[in-house]
Amino acid sequence: MKTEILTLLRQGEEYVSGQQICDRLGVSRTAIWKAVNGLKEEGYVIEAVQNKGYRLISAPDVLTEGEIRSRRLTEWAGCIVEAHERIGYSTNLRAKQLADQGAVHGTLVTADVQEGGKGRRGRPWAAAAPGENIAMSIILRPELAPVQASMLTLITALAVRDEIRALTGICPKIKWPNDVVVNGRKICGILTEMALEAEYIQYLVVGIGINVNNEGFAPELAEKATSLTAETGRRFSRAELICHVLKHFEQYYEVFMRTGDLSALRENYNGSLAGRNQAVRVLAPGQEWEGISRGINEAGALLVEHPDGQLEEISAGEVSVRGIYGYI
Amino acid sequence: MKTEILTLLRQGEEYVSGQQICDRLGVSRTAIWKAVNGLKEEGYVIEAVQNKGYRLISAPDVLTEGEIRSRRLTEWAGCIVEAHERIGYSTNLRAKQLADQGAVHGTLVTADVQEGGKGRRGRPWAAAAPGENIAMSIILRPELAPVQASMLTLITALAVRDEIRALTGICPKIKWPNDVVVNGRKICGILTEMALEAEYIQYLVVGIGINVNNEGFAPELAEKATSLTAETGRRFSRAELICHVLKHFEQYYEVFMRTGDLSALRENYNGSLAGRNQAVRVLAPGQEWEGISRGINEAGALLVEHPDGQLEEISAGEVSVRGIYGYI
Repeated sequence: MKTEILTLLRQGEEYVSGQQICDRLGVSRTAIWKAVNGLKEEGYVIEAVQNKGYRLISAPDVLTEGEIRSRRLTEWAGCIVEAHERIGYSTNLRAKQLADQGAVHGTLVTADVQEGGKGRRGRPWAAAAPGENIAMSIILRPELAPVQASMLTLITALAVRDEIRALTGICPKIKWPNDVVVNGRKICGILTEMALEAEYIQYLVVGIGINVNNEGFAPELAEKATSLTAETGRRFSRAELICHVLKHFEQYYEVFMRTGDLSALRENYNGSLAGRNQAVRVLAPGQEWEGISRGINEAGALLVEHPDGQLEEISAGEVSVRGIYGYI
Repeated sequence: MKTEILTLLRQGEEYVSGQQICDRLGVSRTAIWKAVNGLKEEGYVIEAVQNKGYRLISAPDVLTEGEIRSRRLTEWAGCIVEAHERIGYSTNLRAKQLADQGAVHGTLVTADVQEGGKGRRGRPWAAAAPGENIAMSIILRPELAPVQASMLTLITALAVRDEIRALTGICPKIKWPNDVVVNGRKICGILTEMALEAEYIQYLVVGIGINVNNEGFAPELAEKATSLTAETGRRFSRAELICHVLKHFEQYYEVFMRTGDLSALRENYNGSLAGRNQAVRVLAPGQEWEGISRGINEAGALLVEHPDGQLEEISAGEVSVRGIYGYI
């Protein structure tokens, strides 16, 4: 019921009367009073004024189902929320378990602390203290061919970039295919995983890790990682950030699904591509070569120009691409 | 320890002395005597003769780790066995859980009774009584592109066909891509699932369901399903069958991995293809058409000839193919 009360308080212009809440939720005044007290204990500041009703003054930065669902801005992304205080493995793994059990398109898994986060190819993704990071995974069940699925990583990067830009004024770059960087340091990583049978996608899980309120990083990460707080000196509501990222994501997803490719989003993406028109080193299995990054094509592959002017399409997953001059 | 004792008894020519077992396993005579009694309670008939030792006379048709591992004929397929008496979901789902937790290439999951078995696209796969069916799933971690993975379904069909042929003399047909049929009735279904990130396969799970000792089927299945017992009147050791299927599978897998395609196995497969050179109906999304099935190509796609003589490649997962004259 806390979720419903928070939702009503956030929808209301000013005060929401106890009677309105009773009518909407079909519960007693006493039940509402108890739930409001529960919210206050969680850190919500809720004003109660005789003859006017309740008003939400401020919310704590918690990743709870109630906090996320009451801020929802989307049609289907985050329609179901499973919020963990602490997850011993990763939100992606939990989302895969839920998907195997039939969880619907749009289901969201979050964790305040994710202890077993993974990057691409099983590389570890460092855990942070409570209140610092966002670890979130979205379950998707699109009608797509498997080859189209890696494009979802790219549109997710667009959604995260949009929200960081809107929230802070910083213009992040996207390090193809799956990182969002600010001043050459990683602020967000994205890991898309999928379950297939033959050519049929059972489900996809898009995992997003964002460094939000971290004030510093361990020495081995300090050169490579940054956070919104490190860049701005401010702290942010992670639930609000999640809901805005989901809103951008849902919009990009709809655009993408209309054509099944990135033709409508390619320029948008390339506008933020780190290292575009710069020299890059392509690390393919068994060979390395250098070329000029020319941005992605409509399938999400990176086009790299050989010294002889020929363009080669690089597919995500097979290779890594590194900037030669400075970190991209 | 039962597994080790069964393994020694199965390796021995005739009698295996208690002292030999003690030496090999580094345990006491009493421990061995207890374990042998435990095996007898499970239904094993083990003869013990003074001054000669132990001899395995017969084994019950049980799907236990000990029974399967002691019959192992392979290098890596079935190196780890998790055997369930009853599984509420499916062996594929359990294998995916284990793979998510890091289970190695070749890990095998079996269930005597599988209550939540699935066919392609989530279609239910009927459960059977204890002792009747084989439900098994193998975890694979190949270095393959996702597009190559569906070929594993085809080589699995070859392995099952080989073993049914060796065991019964019956020559089953393969209904492309994933069923093995006898006299037009399904005796085995195969479901290959995979976990991917972008172009990188994290793991594959190949699930195999075989109707072995079923004496009859529910009315709605009787027209469509058959079993080894229904075809021969005999009963079979399912653990032995599993180990032989794994042996064939491992051999085909090595051949397949050498080239990454089915060029070396294509003729072998086409020799058993149901409906080859016969009229088939292709049910693609939004359209249906008829043609002549011309067998698979080296990528595992089915070649269907249009009336104008043009060959079309049909990829598994996108379409179904049905025989027009009779069930294939």
